[in-house]
Amino acid sequence: MTKKNTTIYDISKKLNVSVATVSRALNNHPRISQETKELVMAAAKEMNYKQNNLATALKSGETKTVGVIVPYINTNFFSSVIRGLEEELSPHGYRVIICQSHDDADIEKKQLTTLLHTQVDCIFISISRNTSDMEYVKKIIATANTPIIFFDRKKDIPGISTITIDDHRGAYVATEHLIQQGYKNIYHFSGDQNLEIYQNRLNGYINALKDYNLPVIKENIINTGSSIEEGINAMKTVWKRKLKPDAIFSASDFTALGVCKEIKNLKLKIPQDIGVIGFSNEPFTQFMELSISSVDQTPVLMGKISGNVFLESIKDNSSGISIEKKLVLAPTLYIRESSKRK
Amino acid sequence: MTKKNTTIYDISKKLNVSVATVSRALNNHPRISQETKELVMAAAKEMNYKQNNLATALKSGETKTVGVIVPYINTNFFSSVIRGLEEELSPHGYRVIICQSHDDADIEKKQLTTLLHTQVDCIFISISRNTSDMEYVKKIIATANTPIIFFDRKKDIPGISTITIDDHRGAYVATEHLIQQGYKNIYHFSGDQNLEIYQNRLNGYINALKDYNLPVIKENIINTGSSIEEGINAMKTVWKRKLKPDAIFSASDFTALGVCKEIKNLKLKIPQDIGVIGFSNEPFTQFMELSISSVDQTPVLMGKISGNVFLESIKDNSSGISIEKKLVLAPTLYIRESSKRK
Repeated sequence: MTKKNTTIYDISKKLNVSVATVSRALNNHPRISQETKELVMAAAKEMNYKQNNLATALKSGETKTVGVIVPYINTNFFSSVIRGLEEELSPHGYRVIICQSHDDADIEKKQLTTLLHTQVDCIFISISRNTSDMEYVKKIIATANTPIIFFDRKKDIPGISTITIDDHRGAYVATEHLIQQGYKNIYHFSGDQNLEIYQNRLNGYINALKDYNLPVIKENIINTGSSIEEGINAMKTVWKRKLKPDAIFSASDFTALGVCKEIKNLKLKIPQDIGVIGFSNEPFTQFMELSISSVDQTPVLMGKISGNVFLESIKDNSSGISIEKKLVLAPTLYIRESSKRK
Repeated sequence: MTKKNTTIYDISKKLNVSVATVSRALNNHPRISQETKELVMAAAKEMNYKQNNLATALKSGETKTVGVIVPYINTNFFSSVIRGLEEELSPHGYRVIICQSHDDADIEKKQLTTLLHTQVDCIFISISRNTSDMEYVKKIIATANTPIIFFDRKKDIPGISTITIDDHRGAYVATEHLIQQGYKNIYHFSGDQNLEIYQNRLNGYINALKDYNLPVIKENIINTGSSIEEGINAMKTVWKRKLKPDAIFSASDFTALGVCKEIKNLKLKIPQDIGVIGFSNEPFTQFMELSISSVDQTPVLMGKISGNVFLESIKDNSSGISIEKKLVLAPTLYIRESSKRK
C-alpha cells in the first residue's frame, strides 16, 4: 500500500536524461523537444507516476491551502472560527487544513512544522495555554516566508496580525450585569493567567467592581482551567469558606457548567441563591434546563475577518505594502436564567 | 508576505549547475564533491532557501503525515475518533491533519484532492451523507498509491479497510430496552438512509420489534436528519397523529435533544409519558437536567483501531502481504433518566 512512489528521479534514471529535463517535459516547457516530451510522458504513464500540484507548488510557492492550529477542535468557539475561515477563503479557492495542539506548546510547535512542510500559504494560530517561548515563531517569520496570523489567543509579536475580541469589555459587562442584579460578593473563576485573553477578562472583572465601588478581594479570584471538573472543584472549595459567593463570573462556559452542577448538588437555587455567568456562549449554555448567561465572542465573524486579513495581505503585498493589523471585535452579553433574578 | 520562495531551480541557475547537483548537494549525496556542497550550501543560505521535508517526501514517498476527513469537527463523536487516531499514531511519529467536508460530497472530493497533493501517507474518511459516486475514490486507489481507510460512515469498496461499530446491534439493544420498559408504540427517527450506518440502525429497530412480536408500522419510521430542529419538527408532526408514540428511538443524539425540548414544550413528562433514547452518547446527554439514554460508539477506540490498521498495513506491506480489513466494534447502551420508568 505504501510502496515507494515513482518520482521524476526514477523517470530520469530510466530514460537516462537529466531530472531537469524530465521536470520540464512534464511541465510542457518550450525548450524541450516534442519528441522528448512524448518519451517522458510515456515513461511517466508506464511507471504510474503521479504528477502532483505539490511539485508545482514547490516552484510557484503557492498551494492554495492554509493551515489552522487550535487548542481543540471540539469546542463550539474554535470550530466556529474555523467555519468562518472556510466561508471566507473557500470562494477564493483556498482549502483549510486543521491541526489541534491539545493545548500543549510542544505539540503546537510540531504541528507548526508539519504545516510549514506542507507548504501552506498562511498559518492561523490560537496558541496553547502553556506556550511561552515564541522564538520559533519569530524565526519562522524571519526565514520561512509563510505568514502567520494569531486569533483569539495571541502574543504580541512584531509582524504578526492579530484578531481578538475585547475580552476586557466582555468581562466588564458580565460583571456589571451581576452587580445590577444585586449580587454583592461576586467571585471570578479566572482561567489560565498565562494567556492574555484570561488576563483581560480578569481585568474587566476588577475594573467593573472598582467602577461600582465594590471591594476587589484577592481571595475571590480563583485560578481555574476551563473544564467542568475544575468548576465543580472550585465551587466546592469556595462554598466551605466563611465569606461565601453570591455570584460566580467564570471566564469559561465549561467551568460555569461545573459550577451549576455543584450548586445543584449543594441544594442551592440559581439564580436566587447564586448567580452564574460563563464566557464563550457554547451552545449547551442555551440547551440546559436552566439556561446559562454567557458572553458571545462572534467566532464565525472572527474566522471570516482572520481569512480576510490574509486575503488583504496578499493584495497589500502585491503593491509592496505589508500592514500588520490588530483587530478587536466587540463581544455581546447574552442574559439568561442563571443570572436574572430581578 | 507571499513572495516567491527560493527553489533549487533558482540555486541551480545562480550557480550554473544542474538541478540534480543542487538537490544532491543539499542532501549530502556522496557523489558530490565537498567543494560543490559548500558552494550550494552558501548560495542556499544567501538566497534564504528553505529546505523542506516535502521535497524529501517527494523522493521518499513518505511525509509522516496522515489526513482525516470528517463531516464535522465539532461533534464529540468525530473529534473523539480524531483524538484516538492521534493517540495511536503520534508515538510512531505521525502527525494528523484534519479537513471537514461539512457533510457535502463536493467539498469532500476537494478535501481529498488537497490531502493527496499534500502527500499524506494515508487518508482516513468518514463520508458525507450525500456521497454516492465513489468512482474518484476507486481511481485514487488504482493510481495514487495513497491508502484510504473508512471509519464509521463507509461504502464497501474492494481494497479499502473499514472500521465501524455494529450499528444494527446498538439500535437493537436500544429498542429492546424500550420494549422491556413497557413502551408499546415506539417510533424511530431514522437519519439519512443514504448512509449505511442509518440503514443498519433502522434494521436493528425493525428486528427488535419483530423478535418481540410487536408490529412494524411504516408510519412510525420518520426520516429525519440529525439536527435539534429536525427533532423538534418531527416530534411536533407525530404528536398531531391519532396513534401517538409513547417512546422515540432516535438515530441521533441531536435529534433526541430536539425531541426532549418539544416534549417539554407539550407539557408531557419524560420518561412517564414518553421515553427517549438517542445515539452517539454526546456529552450533553449526560449534562442535561434530565439525562438522555444513548448508545455509545467508543469513538476513541475507533480512532485508535483505525490508526492501528494503517500501521499494520505498512508492516504487512513490507512482507508483501496487503490485507483488507473489515473491523466492527461493539456499542454500549447507556441507560439514563429519559427511558427508565421501571
